[in-house]
Amino acid sequence: MSRVFNFSAGPAMLPTEVIQQAQQEILDWNGSGMSVMEMSHRGKEFIEIASTAEADLRELLAIPDNYKVLFLQGGASTQFAMVPLNLMDRTGKADYANTGAWSKKAISEGKRFGEVNICASSEEDGFNSVPAFDSWNLSSDASYVHITPNETIGGVVYQGLPDTGDVPIVADMSSTILSRPTNVSDYGIIYTGAQKNIGPAGLTIVIVREDLIGQAGDSCPTMLNYATHDKADSMANTPPTYSWYLAGLVFKWLKDKGGLSAMAEINERKASKLYAAIDGNDFYSNPVAIQNRSWMNVPFILKDADLDASFLEGAKELGLMTLKGHRSVGGMRASIYNAMPEEGVDTLIQYMNDFAAKNG
Amino acid sequence: MSRVFNFSAGPAMLPTEVIQQAQQEILDWNGSGMSVMEMSHRGKEFIEIASTAEADLRELLAIPDNYKVLFLQGGASTQFAMVPLNLMDRTGKADYANTGAWSKKAISEGKRFGEVNICASSEEDGFNSVPAFDSWNLSSDASYVHITPNETIGGVVYQGLPDTGDVPIVADMSSTILSRPTNVSDYGIIYTGAQKNIGPAGLTIVIVREDLIGQAGDSCPTMLNYATHDKADSMANTPPTYSWYLAGLVFKWLKDKGGLSAMAEINERKASKLYAAIDGNDFYSNPVAIQNRSWMNVPFILKDADLDASFLEGAKELGLMTLKGHRSVGGMRASIYNAMPEEGVDTLIQYMNDFAAKNG
Repeated sequence: MSRVFNFSAGPAMLPTEVIQQAQQEILDWNGSGMSVMEMSHRGKEFIEIASTAEADLRELLAIPDNYKVLFLQGGASTQFAMVPLNLMDRTGKADYANTGAWSKKAISEGKRFGEVNICASSEEDGFNSVPAFDSWNLSSDASYVHITPNETIGGVVYQGLPDTGDVPIVADMSSTILSRPTNVSDYGIIYTGAQKNIGPAGLTIVIVREDLIGQAGDSCPTMLNYATHDKADSMANTPPTYSWYLAGLVFKWLKDKGGLSAMAEINERKASKLYAAIDGNDFYSNPVAIQNRSWMNVPFILKDADLDASFLEGAKELGLMTLKGHRSVGGMRASIYNAMPEEGVDTLIQYMNDFAAKNG
Repeated sequence: MSRVFNFSAGPAMLPTEVIQQAQQEILDWNGSGMSVMEMSHRGKEFIEIASTAEADLRELLAIPDNYKVLFLQGGASTQFAMVPLNLMDRTGKADYANTGAWSKKAISEGKRFGEVNICASSEEDGFNSVPAFDSWNLSSDASYVHITPNETIGGVVYQGLPDTGDVPIVADMSSTILSRPTNVSDYGIIYTGAQKNIGPAGLTIVIVREDLIGQAGDSCPTMLNYATHDKADSMANTPPTYSWYLAGLVFKWLKDKGGLSAMAEINERKASKLYAAIDGNDFYSNPVAIQNRSWMNVPFILKDADLDASFLEGAKELGLMTLKGHRSVGGMRASIYNAMPEEGVDTLIQYMNDFAAKNG
């Protein structure tokens, strides 16, 4: 069987070229006689792999020198605790925007470690938009403002950022990182699981402004303290070396594609044509406010939920996989990260049109 | 270049057959059209991979039904905090045996969360033995007794276990798991990083007796609570799927080799001949008490440290890699985990003899 178009929300497709390169050198990296997964993380081969990956990520995102890049484990869910454990002691409270399922998880965990102020919420709206920034109830003494710039389940994306003054913005960018250029200096911390736009699951990247490191309280477990990992160049213990290597291959692939401006152009085009197909046919719908529609996660509902199973079945026959929507939203969800070829989106649209014509 | 004999303490060699199988199916697992690293962790393909791996591990170690197997992230170093966060509240104190560098790290982290009693220590002995069990100063009201059955840096292994009565033993088995049969019911918790005897770095396996789950205090971060992962079958968030899959391939390989009794026989033979080569030549020495010499990590010192660089250089020419000892011990260290072929040990011994003859 040939490779399918996999619309999974994460773990998600990786560029075929990247997997092919990994395949070619899996038994012997660069004449070392070892797989990357067998290398000591303290050996010169892996240090080269690790530092090249970091340098390429810094170049892609134009990360300023006063930001550290940490290669960690535990996923965004572990960051939900690490962020307050490292920053909440600054003032004892933090602002959180509630824009969907992942915001809610971050909020729930944040409350274990200090006072949480919900500075904005779209819950009454069914999480179908981002509240207008001028309506946000920001605290001047918050330790930080936590946002989720792209909600993977709802398919909701921020346009712009609230003005938080001197209060640092902490952003869970798991499902939007590297999909377009990002002005890193707008944030205090950007964190992301790797398994959507970076590489295999099990790697978590944290981009953190230097002055926010070293403020954790005594009760913070050593491995949840950013300072531990900063001091040790992310090698306080054995890092997830193979995932780090694969992330590096993805960063090279992105550079070869022309970087994040080029990716943004492709991503916008892919998303636009998919939303056009949804909007252009009464058979499909997407409830998200136009200006907050995600480029990465596109949920859509069929007119008749009884047709869902048949839609998925027919899609599968064409190699269009993992389109079932999250149970909390229903219907379908097409996650179209960087590695989803435009051909995959085109094939999906053609299928959607055919299916609607047959069943409409 | 052909594959080398890599004596790294971890990440370490994996069986060549395992990497070859991974190579073969890296672009398309079992006709799914996807790499395992691209699969949704909630899809039926990955659920099959994950549950087969768990079943095989249970079979290899004969894990009783009242033990849960958790597939986590963060390494043993994160367990240094998770163990006390989950268990220390039972009585507020715990016993720790201090038998080397890794014990010391566990002790240092344990002290953040309760009262730590050092029930035994070989520090005065230079960490070259395990204190006789009848000399241990065990507390009857300890929440647990923490031990490090194999010290990776010192090359020190336990023979047998202390009698701790009803107090559960918690064991960091990172460098000895699966090297021989283990009676799991002797332990309350066994934890291990994967990168020595299981698979790539980034996966941590915890085998925990059911009644020890659910005792964490309110201050425990959600992702550090065993109950979180138990309830969700290790999928509370996205697990390190590709490492889990590779671990499963290693478990199959171990079963094909005849299981842990067969591995124990090979491991004992590999270690015995290497220690015999060290003891049989004044040129080399190993300071560890005979009964506590590790099968997995074999440190040895050259008579003249000025020859270390030349020894390493000559070894490299024969494809004998990563033999440099840990800086705290000096000299050499040969880590000879399950995946190190006997031929690798034989080649090393031949080289050691030749080198001693030339330079002795």
